Amino acid sequence: MTHEQPSRSIPGYRLGDPELPQAPVSSADFAHMKTACLLGDDDIDALRRSHDVLVPQTEAILDVWYGFVGSHDFLVASFVDTNTQQPNADYLSRVRARFGQWIADTARANYDDAWLRYQLEIGRRHHRVGKNRTDEVTSTPLISFRYLPLLAQPIVDTLRPFLGTPSRDREDVDAMHNAWRKSVLLQVTLWSHPYIIEGDY
Amino acid sequence: MTHEQPSRSIPGYRLGDPELPQAPVSSADFAHMKTACLLGDDDIDALRRSHDVLVPQTEAILDVWYGFVGSHDFLVASFVDTNTQQPNADYLSRVRARFGQWIADTARANYDDAWLRYQLEIGRRHHRVGKNRTDEVTSTPLISFRYLPLLAQPIVDTLRPFLGTPSRDREDVDAMHNAWRKSVLLQVTLWSHPYIIEGDY
Repeated sequence: MTHEQPSRSIPGYRLGDPELPQAPVSSADFAHMKTACLLGDDDIDALRRSHDVLVPQTEAILDVWYGFVGSHDFLVASFVDTNTQQPNADYLSRVRARFGQWIADTARANYDDAWLRYQLEIGRRHHRVGKNRTDEVTSTPLISFRYLPLLAQPIVDTLRPFLGTPSRDREDVDAMHNAWRKSVLLQVTLWSHPYIIEGDY
Repeated sequence: MTHEQPSRSIPGYRLGDPELPQAPVSSADFAHMKTACLLGDDDIDALRRSHDVLVPQTEAILDVWYGFVGSHDFLVASFVDTNTQQPNADYLSRVRARFGQWIADTARANYDDAWLRYQLEIGRRHHRVGKNRTDEVTSTPLISFRYLPLLAQPIVDTLRPFLGTPSRDREDVDAMHNAWRKSVLLQVTLWSHPYIIEGDY
């Protein structure tokens, strides 16, 4: 399966861009990472089943996630324009568009080399090596490391009602939800790479 | 509630040791961390309800966790004696004793300053600044960062059957399980501190 490119119009979206650097995680390392967080073929299948459940609800899911961020100053701070001290609405909306596409990409679960490269790029955009550059904004230099793993919890927890449509049985909803939990944990671990002391990742 | 000290006989167990350095996480930072991963008072209550459910099953839980580690060479590697290239049984058993106490401490959920200091000490024992020293062993210099967040998944997933005793209703088991998930995520995030580039945590 190659990456479909439904979203070339999303500014800064670079999944499949061959100019992204190689990921500093070998395919053997990545296989171990999947094993460590119990992400198996059944989870990949469950993620893919979630695609058509979640994608039509993308805006509603983003409303919940942005609602959570927006309700906490210490999280909104990452989107503040340091000139005006106000949240930068354009920055928020550009990130939101990519976040919406991220739902589809996570659910498509085509975790190949192109996907890995883009995960590392997402990591750089959280860290001071790359934050603000993609969107050419003046904002805080860094999202503190601590929030990468921690925010996996609200992201995954709040997804559950969107998976539990009336036509799905509970076992299937659990399977999709668990697969999402593993995938998000795997991704935040990849995104953490730029924060880690060289040699310690 | 002060820390009970049921376990002074566990080698290297230092919860409550005033000689541990101050945690480099302020109480305001820690409050934000709990908020970010949705750990609230209900979760603290649920963790405490899990104490008497889990503690009598400690050895069986550790059997599952050690079984998981033991079934993967890339995880066992952290316990290998680099002189003999064989797993160091004494090192494994010393860590196991502390890991058993960690179940009780997590469930006691008295996440105060002494607890925070000890979490940072646990982090150092995973990282090259402190690995092997507590147990005076010759082993690999580092547990790679990536496994700290990733192993939260098997630890928490495999806990569920131990929470689901026949006398508990499903809602209460879910509450305890979710609270454990949040607490473990919070803890692995704290343990990651020594791995993070200065200023980026």
